[in-house]
Amino acid sequence: MQWARVRTTDGRELVGVIEGDSLHPRVALGSDEGAGPAVALADTERLPPCVPGKFIGLWNNFHAAAQRNGWEIPEHPLYFLKPATSLAGPGAVVEMPAAARRVIFEGELGVVIGKRCRNATPEEAAEAILGYTCVNDFTALDLLDADSSFRHWTRAKGFDNFGVIGPVIETDLDWRAVTVQVMVGGRERQSYPADDMIMEPARIVSLLSGDMTLEPGDVIACGTSVGARPVKAGDVVEVVIEGIGTLPVTMAAPAGA
Amino acid sequence: MQWARVRTTDGRELVGVIEGDSLHPRVALGSDEGAGPAVALADTERLPPCVPGKFIGLWNNFHAAAQRNGWEIPEHPLYFLKPATSLAGPGAVVEMPAAARRVIFEGELGVVIGKRCRNATPEEAAEAILGYTCVNDFTALDLLDADSSFRHWTRAKGFDNFGVIGPVIETDLDWRAVTVQVMVGGRERQSYPADDMIMEPARIVSLLSGDMTLEPGDVIACGTSVGARPVKAGDVVEVVIEGIGTLPVTMAAPAGA
Repeated sequence: MQWARVRTTDGRELVGVIEGDSLHPRVALGSDEGAGPAVALADTERLPPCVPGKFIGLWNNFHAAAQRNGWEIPEHPLYFLKPATSLAGPGAVVEMPAAARRVIFEGELGVVIGKRCRNATPEEAAEAILGYTCVNDFTALDLLDADSSFRHWTRAKGFDNFGVIGPVIETDLDWRAVTVQVMVGGRERQSYPADDMIMEPARIVSLLSGDMTLEPGDVIACGTSVGARPVKAGDVVEVVIEGIGTLPVTMAAPAGA
Repeated sequence: MQWARVRTTDGRELVGVIEGDSLHPRVALGSDEGAGPAVALADTERLPPCVPGKFIGLWNNFHAAAQRNGWEIPEHPLYFLKPATSLAGPGAVVEMPAAARRVIFEGELGVVIGKRCRNATPEEAAEAILGYTCVNDFTALDLLDADSSFRHWTRAKGFDNFGVIGPVIETDLDWRAVTVQVMVGGRERQSYPADDMIMEPARIVSLLSGDMTLEPGDVIACGTSVGARPVKAGDVVEVVIEGIGTLPVTMAAPAGA
């Protein structure tokens, strides 16, 4: 089943389930309860498929990246938060920050929470996952270490539209079987198997739920692997995960530049 | 003028302005438009005075703390995000995380945004500030450096109820004139002048608005100075700022401990 959010031509925002070329609205993400007649997807603007109360991103969660960079395997998820204003959906225009010299894409698998959970066992955590989405976790890499006393994850990851998710939340994905792929201008620039993950989704959710209550719509980006690269104004960058779909954005020059 | 949020005995959540012993409801934080009859504050439960879309906390923003710890004066605000689930209000019970051995209070002045702003000049930023509140920015200090490869600000700062704000948002505070004080069990344990700040509120808001769009209700905790100390289960911890009021919480043992 695929969940999506759309804006209709008359400005309504709907969340629901995709069947064929239509969205069947529901009262809330994950709900069985209908909310009015189906709308043709062709007549809508696609929005991020959920509005996370928390948008969590993991660092150092792939064996290949850890090995290449000489990072130790972590015992607990290492994570930062992306602010609500960084959220963007399919087709967004991502403005390059004037302050940044080097912005990279990071293609990632995103976990979407369906049930409130705290101190969940791995089994409970697996039940709390609604589904999976594509994430492009843009990062202003030069700003991460602009101050030598403080690795500035929040600033580097937090610019408007730097947290792109979508196009849908797929509830039936076999995440172990998928490849996370990033295309820039139609050319493959990143491609890695999701099952190279150090901590898998249910384990991440279980451990994070010991740190904070997780709520429906929360998104956890599972971290990226090798191959993340710089982008420039004009680039069309797509995260592609088979079974979820293609998540495109266009990079733009800083306003006033 | 003082803004507050309350829950009534019949479960309604109201935001409004305090006059005498009553709350005069408004349609939204910062709005002039009324929303029904006044309610007696004595008949309500006090909630956090706003629900921030972003709860930003600064590190290293006081000269005294920078000098004592040998930190360089930063050129740009150094900050982390506290998750939505860390939000708590006056009278909250703050559970000590089972994973943490050393939790400290941090008394801080909080800036509350009243107007959406991006790339604001310091003058525009000053206009975008609705008012000020007390913040207790609890921190699991031992978890900050539990992994030597990653200072884990989000985990250390992000436990449920670790972001306490209130009791009100005061719109007319002369922040340069106030002392931020923390009492534990009625005894003063932290006390520092707000005007020892390295970056002042309007400058913080201006610079942050270049990194991300700030929105009404967003909270920026201005950082703490010297004197933050460990707490233990059973402690009553109060942040006191004259003109804003007293923000009490009670520390509790981990569930199951």
